[in-house]
Amino acid sequence: MNIITISREFGSGGRELGKYLADLLGYDYYDREIVAAIAGQKSLDEKYVEKALENHIWQTVPLTFRQSFAGVNRMQEMQTGLLLEQTRVIEGIAKAGKNCVIVGRNADVLLAGEKPFSIFVCAGMEAKIQRCMERAPEGENLSRREMEQNIRRIDKNRARTRELLGGSRWGSSSAYHLMINTTEWNIKELAPAVAEFADCWFRR
Amino acid sequence: MNIITISREFGSGGRELGKYLADLLGYDYYDREIVAAIAGQKSLDEKYVEKALENHIWQTVPLTFRQSFAGVNRMQEMQTGLLLEQTRVIEGIAKAGKNCVIVGRNADVLLAGEKPFSIFVCAGMEAKIQRCMERAPEGENLSRREMEQNIRRIDKNRARTRELLGGSRWGSSSAYHLMINTTEWNIKELAPAVAEFADCWFRR
Repeated sequence: MNIITISREFGSGGRELGKYLADLLGYDYYDREIVAAIAGQKSLDEKYVEKALENHIWQTVPLTFRQSFAGVNRMQEMQTGLLLEQTRVIEGIAKAGKNCVIVGRNADVLLAGEKPFSIFVCAGMEAKIQRCMERAPEGENLSRREMEQNIRRIDKNRARTRELLGGSRWGSSSAYHLMINTTEWNIKELAPAVAEFADCWFRR
Repeated sequence: MNIITISREFGSGGRELGKYLADLLGYDYYDREIVAAIAGQKSLDEKYVEKALENHIWQTVPLTFRQSFAGVNRMQEMQTGLLLEQTRVIEGIAKAGKNCVIVGRNADVLLAGEKPFSIFVCAGMEAKIQRCMERAPEGENLSRREMEQNIRRIDKNRARTRELLGGSRWGSSSAYHLMINTTEWNIKELAPAVAEFADCWFRR
């Protein structure tokens, strides 16, 4: 079974790259599907689950993941429960044994034993703001400054969740097999080269 | 003209990757050739030039590169002269207009105007120590601990020189197009995938 994991800075195009890779390689693709599975298990709204995982407050939780939850307030308890469920869902994907691309959610840390090919996708701030602006849902009228704050906040949370899960430092070159800066690329044109890389990894 | 630049952590295999890339793509290859050119221009021994550039003391130079050198001691003056000569040599390579791979020496910063495809090669510390041990010149009997100190010292100097030249942060994901962690790779097997990437970049 070949697993490709994609960690990414918000707005860098990691999701788009993941989709192209799955298409090119004929792999299953997991991203929001994971949120949907968690929401289903917990009987919660998908959007709510997504927001809770994205805006969590792990940083204030004074304990190691999976340890006792005594003393943690209700909100944190619920968010920890979602993170645990996410872990179960991702482990379930691996157990299914099919080649796949998993975007985000620290899948490279959770599935380290499966030796995934781990990619980190990043981009310059201006490129990320531009991408987010172009893809903003209707009615969301954030200024460039607000968009930048949004990007920084989400990435900070991603880094903290990774830390909580015991993974190597988020965005650090030694933590991934390949890091791609998409600032000056067209992601569709770039995808076959990444697929070649992944293929090279799994053929070792 | 296509230029590929390779920055690398000491011991990560960046030079080896550069050689394979140049072979695969039919590009010229520059690495120690740059040191030889500087040594020739300055009528100095190659090994001396290499050591001086590697062990420089820029961090104590209280001025911006290319500014007045008043007050700088003789050793620093000589080293700054070597760095300036290196810049001239690298600019000369670009002026020649031939496709090439340049390893190290902040060529991506110096030749930013030429839009090179810039790669950063890194590896886990254990892998780097192992590689250095295997390639140590005869008579060099450093312990693993000394080797690690050596690696950290050289990389620290590389980071400082880059800073001095006004480049973006050494080893930071946003500073390069592609970062490759060679820890678990065979570099020869990896090289064609990198060549594909570079090709994809120049075809944009």
